[in-house]
Amino acid sequence: MTGSDNGAVAIGIDFGTLSGRAVVASVADGRELASAEHVYRHGAIEETLPTSGAKLPRSWALQSPADWRDVLRIAVPKALEAAGVTADRVVGIATDFTACTVLPALADGTPLCELDDLAERPHAWPKLWKHHAAQGQADRINALAAERGEEWLPRYGGKISSEWQFAKGLQLLEEDPEVYGRAERWIEAADWIVWQLCGVETRNNCTAGYKGILQDGKYPSSEFLAALNPEFADFVEKIDFPIAALGDRAGGLTAQAAEWIGLNEGTAVAVGNVDAHVTAASAKAVGPGQIVAIMGTSTCHVVNGENLTEAKGMCGVVRDGIVPGLWGYEAGQSGVGDIFAWWVKNGVPGEYTAEAEKRGISIHQYLTELAENQNVGEHGLVALDWHSGNRSVLVDHDLHGVILGLSLQTKPEEIYRALVEATAFGTRKIVETLVGSGVPIEEFVAAGGLLKNKWLMQTYSDVLRMPITVLTSAQGPALGSAIHAAVAAGVYPDIKAAAEAMGKVERNAYVPDPARADAYDELYAVYDELHDHFGRGGSKALHKLHNIAIEASK
Amino acid sequence: MTGSDNGAVAIGIDFGTLSGRAVVASVADGRELASAEHVYRHGAIEETLPTSGAKLPRSWALQSPADWRDVLRIAVPKALEAAGVTADRVVGIATDFTACTVLPALADGTPLCELDDLAERPHAWPKLWKHHAAQGQADRINALAAERGEEWLPRYGGKISSEWQFAKGLQLLEEDPEVYGRAERWIEAADWIVWQLCGVETRNNCTAGYKGILQDGKYPSSEFLAALNPEFADFVEKIDFPIAALGDRAGGLTAQAAEWIGLNEGTAVAVGNVDAHVTAASAKAVGPGQIVAIMGTSTCHVVNGENLTEAKGMCGVVRDGIVPGLWGYEAGQSGVGDIFAWWVKNGVPGEYTAEAEKRGISIHQYLTELAENQNVGEHGLVALDWHSGNRSVLVDHDLHGVILGLSLQTKPEEIYRALVEATAFGTRKIVETLVGSGVPIEEFVAAGGLLKNKWLMQTYSDVLRMPITVLTSAQGPALGSAIHAAVAAGVYPDIKAAAEAMGKVERNAYVPDPARADAYDELYAVYDELHDHFGRGGSKALHKLHNIAIEASK
Repeated sequence: MTGSDNGAVAIGIDFGTLSGRAVVASVADGRELASAEHVYRHGAIEETLPTSGAKLPRSWALQSPADWRDVLRIAVPKALEAAGVTADRVVGIATDFTACTVLPALADGTPLCELDDLAERPHAWPKLWKHHAAQGQADRINALAAERGEEWLPRYGGKISSEWQFAKGLQLLEEDPEVYGRAERWIEAADWIVWQLCGVETRNNCTAGYKGILQDGKYPSSEFLAALNPEFADFVEKIDFPIAALGDRAGGLTAQAAEWIGLNEGTAVAVGNVDAHVTAASAKAVGPGQIVAIMGTSTCHVVNGENLTEAKGMCGVVRDGIVPGLWGYEAGQSGVGDIFAWWVKNGVPGEYTAEAEKRGISIHQYLTELAENQNVGEHGLVALDWHSGNRSVLVDHDLHGVILGLSLQTKPEEIYRALVEATAFGTRKIVETLVGSGVPIEEFVAAGGLLKNKWLMQTYSDVLRMPITVLTSAQGPALGSAIHAAVAAGVYPDIKAAAEAMGKVERNAYVPDPARADAYDELYAVYDELHDHFGRGGSKALHKLHNIAIEASK
Repeated sequence: MTGSDNGAVAIGIDFGTLSGRAVVASVADGRELASAEHVYRHGAIEETLPTSGAKLPRSWALQSPADWRDVLRIAVPKALEAAGVTADRVVGIATDFTACTVLPALADGTPLCELDDLAERPHAWPKLWKHHAAQGQADRINALAAERGEEWLPRYGGKISSEWQFAKGLQLLEEDPEVYGRAERWIEAADWIVWQLCGVETRNNCTAGYKGILQDGKYPSSEFLAALNPEFADFVEKIDFPIAALGDRAGGLTAQAAEWIGLNEGTAVAVGNVDAHVTAASAKAVGPGQIVAIMGTSTCHVVNGENLTEAKGMCGVVRDGIVPGLWGYEAGQSGVGDIFAWWVKNGVPGEYTAEAEKRGISIHQYLTELAENQNVGEHGLVALDWHSGNRSVLVDHDLHGVILGLSLQTKPEEIYRALVEATAFGTRKIVETLVGSGVPIEEFVAAGGLLKNKWLMQTYSDVLRMPITVLTSAQGPALGSAIHAAVAAGVYPDIKAAAEAMGKVERNAYVPDPARADAYDELYAVYDELHDHFGRGGSKALHKLHNIAIEASK
């Protein structure tokens, strides 16, 4: 560690789906002096456009750049004040963002939705990661790429997502060509916010690779793009700008940004990053073979590898995608916490809700209490955790959930338990597939909101037959950003060193129970059979049902 | 019609699980003048023995003969009084019973549980049909019969039930040999009650065949029985008494029974019968190819055929088993209404229950309202209706329920709808299997409690692609018994003629909608695939889960 003093702090800012959170952390040991949250005034814009009040089409999700600026103006000063920290002690600032959250802008960075003549055009607004209305474009991109044998396709497990830059960009072109034409930039919010902070336009290596299809220094060719749509041929001109490495200094705070935030002009600003990937730093898991699972409504898995392998069913592999010098692998489960929430909302009787309320505990806690003391397999159930499709390893969002083994004695808490177990089985499938594809995994590190359910975490440990290290900060992404800020400020030579000093984990917080692990092996064998039967073509039943439902809903 | 006059009536008495119901019906046209119910004082005895208060083992279910006599003494006079009918107008009386409900008795008919020295012995009491504690004995009977290639086994679809006379008898022997030794008779309650009424001991052809393994005039051999247990070799001596044909006169009311009931001594008493089978008469469905589905918590199907065929997965085929002169086929679905009840109890949120209550409708009605207007397949779901195992056509009670196609948008009413559809698919599977085995089916006739849900009935019609005739009496079994009483009294030459005059149906109350039927064909194809995959060995997943659960529960 160089250049730090007793009171030096770094600021990390995590831009989420509904709010932004700032944390002020000591660069010496990562101690969090204070944090603050700003809830976006417009939230996730999914119903009507704030300017015109026009109803948005189905599956749309937008955000407002003004909300992001408010996080800088409101949450950061509040955190600084709560920490009792003056500007002089702040050595650096870094941000992380949801991704792919992407916006059209002018060459000077002005978002098109802030131009008077475009403010009432939905397509001029930033599209949030969970904007799912570009599935048609994604399908065409995938079909054409497979047909042409595009080299980049296997780097994404064979399918790119409708959430990413190209699918959303093609939707913009085809649905509002005028806005598309006015867009001089198509830029990740992760990079746009850094541009706002330091006045320097950068493209971080992480989103460029995972969401922008940048592989081996190249974007998809203009021939490929023209084959999708002739007008799309020069799309890359809107995204192709110099790449910046994670942990690097993007620039110094501009006078204006310094004034918004209440910091000194010139304070180091780090290159942008993604919430999941930056969490690897706070979880001290930036070495090869340390997989980090950020477990919330969905789960994102990131792990570094020393070598490139085209692992089946991953979301993507990107050189330097998590930390410089390694191949960053990303995988994910589309539905985890939101499957439990679905059951709680739709499948739990009133007397359960009433009892939980009476006892002052959440319904999740109550169901856990009722189910956790059962023996493994006693409920006779196995579920497939595909209520929101399957991101890894099948990469198939037309799949849906399954529950097997129901009887007249089956209780709501047993289905809840089976759903929790199903997500653990899904994680095991991902880990086994990565390992089987040549991505060694030596440590399982967990972060995210689901950590608070200790029984769930123990179940994951039992099912995986691995100890679980847990991130002990409640602000995983923001702390990860603070770590990146310390690196950008030159306090540490690299992310690994900074993470070692500032990250916060409890190693082996959960260790597998051998008897339960043995019992789970039997249930996992059933899960595995069903997974392959329904997911790999043995049965087309789920696809048939999906297609029937689509047709019937018309 | 002979011998009837303007005011002649017959009395039918239906002995159920929790109560007995008597109906007084005009023999001319079946008009129900009055009915009355007597709820058993002891109900189904499943927790503790009334005499000693001793706790009964798991899966036991008994009844009290005193309760049955009370039906004669209380319900019948009440119905007669309500009908304003004097004893002189009553030409006959007939009864139907649940089956196999069976009791040990002395040679004079005295139930062993009414002997002072045996009253506190659980095994001295009548075992109710749903006494399920003889599964071990049933398993051994089936295994040995299969091994020895017993000729009668295919007549029961390859498996006899733990509910039936032999399994329950073997349990009696092995668990209380003294009571077994004291039992001079092992007799169906259906026959015992007739004995009480007319003083003549008979064995009706229906229960002897379906529950007593009487085929081609023979019971299982004593070699077979000895191989099960040497002490069981002469078991048949307790059940082998002359067989009486359905609709025949068993005898005339004894002075004592006449006094209990308030009828004339010598009034014709019909041979005993089973609740499901006797309903064929009230539903005017006693000809070949008319399948009657008695749809309640479970569903029982009975249909006559002109020829014998060993249809796969039926519960049994018995010569003269429904009406004399034809082969009576029986099939069943172990779980129907109780699957819907399971979901309502375990899977429906409090706000649904509250809304139904507020509107003064049942939760079943509310869920139906919410789901009935969806297009077929819109919910994207298919379920397997095996929550209580599969009686027909797989005859496998280790199978359990499955739901496929769940998403985060799946609503409770959609699962409810999928469960209703699953039971309709199960019925279609039975009908198709019977037809495929050479049992022609030309008309589908429905009776039972589920008739009150019109949307459900329409769904069955759409799924089956058949019109549905419905029984319009609320007292299907008791009216069926009254019809049998009229035959026993000589008012009609046979059950068919009596049913024609006294039965009550609305033909084609539901007719299939071609568009919905086409749409259901697609869903049924998925059901059919899953049915065979999980039920016929393609996957052993459900059996594995069952076995895991059994082991884990120990």
